[in-house]
Amino acid sequence: MEKNFDRAVLEDLLKRRFFYIPSFEIYQGVSGFYDFGPPGCSVKQNVISTWRQHFIIEESMLEVDCAILTPEIVLKASGHTERFSDLMIYDTVTKEVFRADQLLTEILKTRLKDEKLDEQLRKEYEEIIAQADCYKEKEMHELFQKHKILSPNNNPLSEPVPFNLMFSTFIGPTGTTKAFLRPETAQGIFVNFRRLLGYAGGKVPFAVAQIGNAFRNEISPRSGLLRVREFTLAEIEHFVSPDRKQHEKFKRVAEMELTLFPQKQQLSDGKTIGMKVKDAVDQGIINNQTLAYYMARTHLFLIKLGIKPEGLRFRQHLKHEMAHYASDCWDAEILTSYGWVECVGHADRSCYDLKAHTKVSKTELSVFEQFDEPRMEKAYQAKPVMQKIGREFQKKARLISNHLKQMNSEDAENLKKNIENDGKAKIEIESEEFELAKDHVEFSLEDVKINGRNFVPGVIEPSFGIGRIIYAVFEHSFSVREDDKRRGFFRFTPAVAPVKCSILPLSSNTDFDPLIQKIQSKLTLLGISTKLDTTSTTIGKRYARTDEIGIPLAITVDFDSLNDESVTLRDRDSTKQVRGNYSDIIDSVFQIIQGSLTWEEVTKKFPAFNRPSDKD
Amino acid sequence: MEKNFDRAVLEDLLKRRFFYIPSFEIYQGVSGFYDFGPPGCSVKQNVISTWRQHFIIEESMLEVDCAILTPEIVLKASGHTERFSDLMIYDTVTKEVFRADQLLTEILKTRLKDEKLDEQLRKEYEEIIAQADCYKEKEMHELFQKHKILSPNNNPLSEPVPFNLMFSTFIGPTGTTKAFLRPETAQGIFVNFRRLLGYAGGKVPFAVAQIGNAFRNEISPRSGLLRVREFTLAEIEHFVSPDRKQHEKFKRVAEMELTLFPQKQQLSDGKTIGMKVKDAVDQGIINNQTLAYYMARTHLFLIKLGIKPEGLRFRQHLKHEMAHYASDCWDAEILTSYGWVECVGHADRSCYDLKAHTKVSKTELSVFEQFDEPRMEKAYQAKPVMQKIGREFQKKARLISNHLKQMNSEDAENLKKNIENDGKAKIEIESEEFELAKDHVEFSLEDVKINGRNFVPGVIEPSFGIGRIIYAVFEHSFSVREDDKRRGFFRFTPAVAPVKCSILPLSSNTDFDPLIQKIQSKLTLLGISTKLDTTSTTIGKRYARTDEIGIPLAITVDFDSLNDESVTLRDRDSTKQVRGNYSDIIDSVFQIIQGSLTWEEVTKKFPAFNRPSDKD
Repeated sequence: MEKNFDRAVLEDLLKRRFFYIPSFEIYQGVSGFYDFGPPGCSVKQNVISTWRQHFIIEESMLEVDCAILTPEIVLKASGHTERFSDLMIYDTVTKEVFRADQLLTEILKTRLKDEKLDEQLRKEYEEIIAQADCYKEKEMHELFQKHKILSPNNNPLSEPVPFNLMFSTFIGPTGTTKAFLRPETAQGIFVNFRRLLGYAGGKVPFAVAQIGNAFRNEISPRSGLLRVREFTLAEIEHFVSPDRKQHEKFKRVAEMELTLFPQKQQLSDGKTIGMKVKDAVDQGIINNQTLAYYMARTHLFLIKLGIKPEGLRFRQHLKHEMAHYASDCWDAEILTSYGWVECVGHADRSCYDLKAHTKVSKTELSVFEQFDEPRMEKAYQAKPVMQKIGREFQKKARLISNHLKQMNSEDAENLKKNIENDGKAKIEIESEEFELAKDHVEFSLEDVKINGRNFVPGVIEPSFGIGRIIYAVFEHSFSVREDDKRRGFFRFTPAVAPVKCSILPLSSNTDFDPLIQKIQSKLTLLGISTKLDTTSTTIGKRYARTDEIGIPLAITVDFDSLNDESVTLRDRDSTKQVRGNYSDIIDSVFQIIQGSLTWEEVTKKFPAFNRPSDKD
Repeated sequence: MEKNFDRAVLEDLLKRRFFYIPSFEIYQGVSGFYDFGPPGCSVKQNVISTWRQHFIIEESMLEVDCAILTPEIVLKASGHTERFSDLMIYDTVTKEVFRADQLLTEILKTRLKDEKLDEQLRKEYEEIIAQADCYKEKEMHELFQKHKILSPNNNPLSEPVPFNLMFSTFIGPTGTTKAFLRPETAQGIFVNFRRLLGYAGGKVPFAVAQIGNAFRNEISPRSGLLRVREFTLAEIEHFVSPDRKQHEKFKRVAEMELTLFPQKQQLSDGKTIGMKVKDAVDQGIINNQTLAYYMARTHLFLIKLGIKPEGLRFRQHLKHEMAHYASDCWDAEILTSYGWVECVGHADRSCYDLKAHTKVSKTELSVFEQFDEPRMEKAYQAKPVMQKIGREFQKKARLISNHLKQMNSEDAENLKKNIENDGKAKIEIESEEFELAKDHVEFSLEDVKINGRNFVPGVIEPSFGIGRIIYAVFEHSFSVREDDKRRGFFRFTPAVAPVKCSILPLSSNTDFDPLIQKIQSKLTLLGISTKLDTTSTTIGKRYARTDEIGIPLAITVDFDSLNDESVTLRDRDSTKQVRGNYSDIIDSVFQIIQGSLTWEEVTKKFPAFNRPSDKD
């Protein structure tokens, strides 16, 4: 962020130039929804296509595009219907609703401002605030009681109750199929795991990506784009063998230095540490190569968008913060005027989701790994004693004996133990239960040829909140010129800039039209977005206007251009200008945007030009 | 479509190669939802980015990205809560639900198969089928009664009732803010009209585009991707002055020939006509230049995607078919195995939507057009007679007199007429009604200087159903080789192809790895998506596999490549091969995909290569 950064100035610019505004503005809106206007929409597209190139293309990922509306059974299986909730609490008089952890935090923060506050209490408040979003219903209620917290209107509050954050609806005309708007894109990937595995050739590791909208019915959305009810996610599910989380491209990032904020530092001195990726893995700070590889790739991606490295850190989740599916998690946090904001999560979801869906859908979501050579192993085998089984179970005897014959070693060993301990054991076959006694089954330990093994893969999930990243890019790109402090502008990188090049004729004289058309056609053909400004304002004011939406380059056409087709090219960041033939200039514009030519190099290729200046 | 096209073969390929499948397959799915797997997702992305280049970039449109969840008030204003419905009817015994028009059509079609059917009745049935989706509740009920239609189970049916096709939910924790998933993206553009007009410099014409998901709770979805409950739309709202619908780029398309199916031909000989765009406008067949311009641009877009011109026509809506907001409409229809399918609508929505939102939101959604020179016009002016008004209306007198003074000419003239006719007239100010008598107000006709006029712009809307277009592209690109009829493949254009180039080493020998890595890196750097197939299958079989997902080009690396870095390039459509240095070959691949080099030209640049062939 710039020194003297003023959020109000940024927000005014974002709204005035229609980067984004609250949705349904003419109907006074609904909080938590934003519409992207032309420059914002373009920035969003650019962020997404940079992401697609950086992750999907460069890492050869499989991309999918799955349904948003998701039937209840899927989100029941994944645990979302039960656990995807925040605690809400309401003023018993006005019925106003609050998110319990937010209300708690705000009130305790106010109390902390009191300098006479008891030291013991101060410490207690600070600890509560640090983990406010982790308390369960009962703990939360006790805290509200203990600290005598009332509503902002000084009324008594209800008990906190969990409020599920998913929007629900019904599919079909009969109103019987309940469904939700997906709260994340990941489930679409998990339910398609079998087909994706087949597409990937039946082997892990492979990675699947999805970019799309997700929805969370936040109790009280706030902080602009940072906490909204409808948002775009870009998610990767990288499937690995649970005992082999190495990454084949790890050496490419091993020497990179990341700013880390591990659990240990958070719980001690609160300071981040700079560390080489390979050291962090070697020392067990980052759990495995794959997780670390993605963190490094995320770092590169964010820098590419214009995030400043000094405003970027990776914070490890504390134990109690972890989502219900995660076993380890590192957030890429970006420093903004709202503080450090979580923009990308890197979670190790372990085998949670695939196991959950296997259980409910009865579809095996696992990988069969063939050994290079078959192995001989000792394995337990269960042998049905047909005579006894036949007598006791009659028509079901064949079912039971087949089940026993097909039992794998682990299950057979378990059954053996249970029968040995209790003299009997229950088994379930096709939802029916049978009780087996000692004389129904015999066990043996035999040498068996094992061709391979079945396993449920682990999942490493980098998940990008596109809206939050865009907001962070706005703050990190926002700038003010020394000589014009009233007006801010954006130093967007060429990849992010909503429009790449503006075209400014010196005046609205129609003599300029043919050349302008030539310039515009050539730029468009090269896929370079342009903005033509033919208003009669001075060139200086028009430069300021294109700066406001962060256009990196401007081509100016003047009366000399009509003689020799020469034009001026202006660089937004340095405000310097060069002069050259329009066709050569456009070739350079293309190369600058592609990243293969710097402005420095441009100034060596073309003569400098000093009139008209930004002040005109 | 190919001769001997077999939809089952296509569908098998689409599913087997994971182009798309029913969503939530492992949970037996919910009808009307599809997930795009890797090749399908890539085709979808390619169609969307071709669309963005063809329309947004080339036509300098403003792109926006608005919320999907839309509060009730917005869709009440637009007429969707009241009118966006289909008629449903149910079996009174089994409670099975049907879409009334579909059931009616199916049953009458079955009856039509009876050769002994009375000629009069045959004609009546055919007429009913042709407009089945246009009947209102009462008419539909009468038809079911008159023709004694029972459910497929031979049970009595309920009366038809309208079923609103929007999915509903509630925003926020209190459950009081009702909202819908948007049924089209257009409303997001209309509610932002004021800001968009400002962004466009305050003048029409300008066009706004939006690409995004929309949702319709179809009563009984069917025909795969053609009628689904969640789908992607790409919509353009082109705002014009209602009396100036010319288009400045019209001459660029004026000479193009389109296949038209106007109302007149539909109601007479049922034959399409080939016609130049300019003639269609001159003869009043297509209402205006802007509508015609977009139809021509749509034609070019669809051809670019690989739609065959002979399978493309523009059908004008008959009067009774028009949506509630449309005043004229032409559908781009594509011939598929399901018949002619509406894929793009070109509707003249006139001023309907902006007026509707102005009324409910009380926000003026109009354009002020400044005249080049002020005009002197005769205008009525209302002059309050203060003494009389003061006496009668007391405290409200000032309010009323101000209102009268500010009245525009049209309103003043109306008031004058009403008072002259009835001796009195009612006026409404700030929701309060007042009755004025003859002696409260005087009127005069005066010369006034008019600087400009306010008008509500008309809207021309081209609306693209991306899923339907993709399905049509699949059918039009699907092909079978003379010498291998069992297996189909896709002749995707380079723009559409999900993967642009495959890389096939002759064997899985690791000696190939360094060269393969060089090739892959260079292609990736150029943004060309690749698929590496290192399986030990024969080259011929691997070609067949890449053909199945429509990869247009294949680079093969063999043992000679290790000596001189030469590789083979194979063209999918001709199955011909050439040989050259890998770097030169990749440059040609780039140019072919960019559309600046043809295969014909490639065969002249490089020597032909005849081994190993497709048969190996």
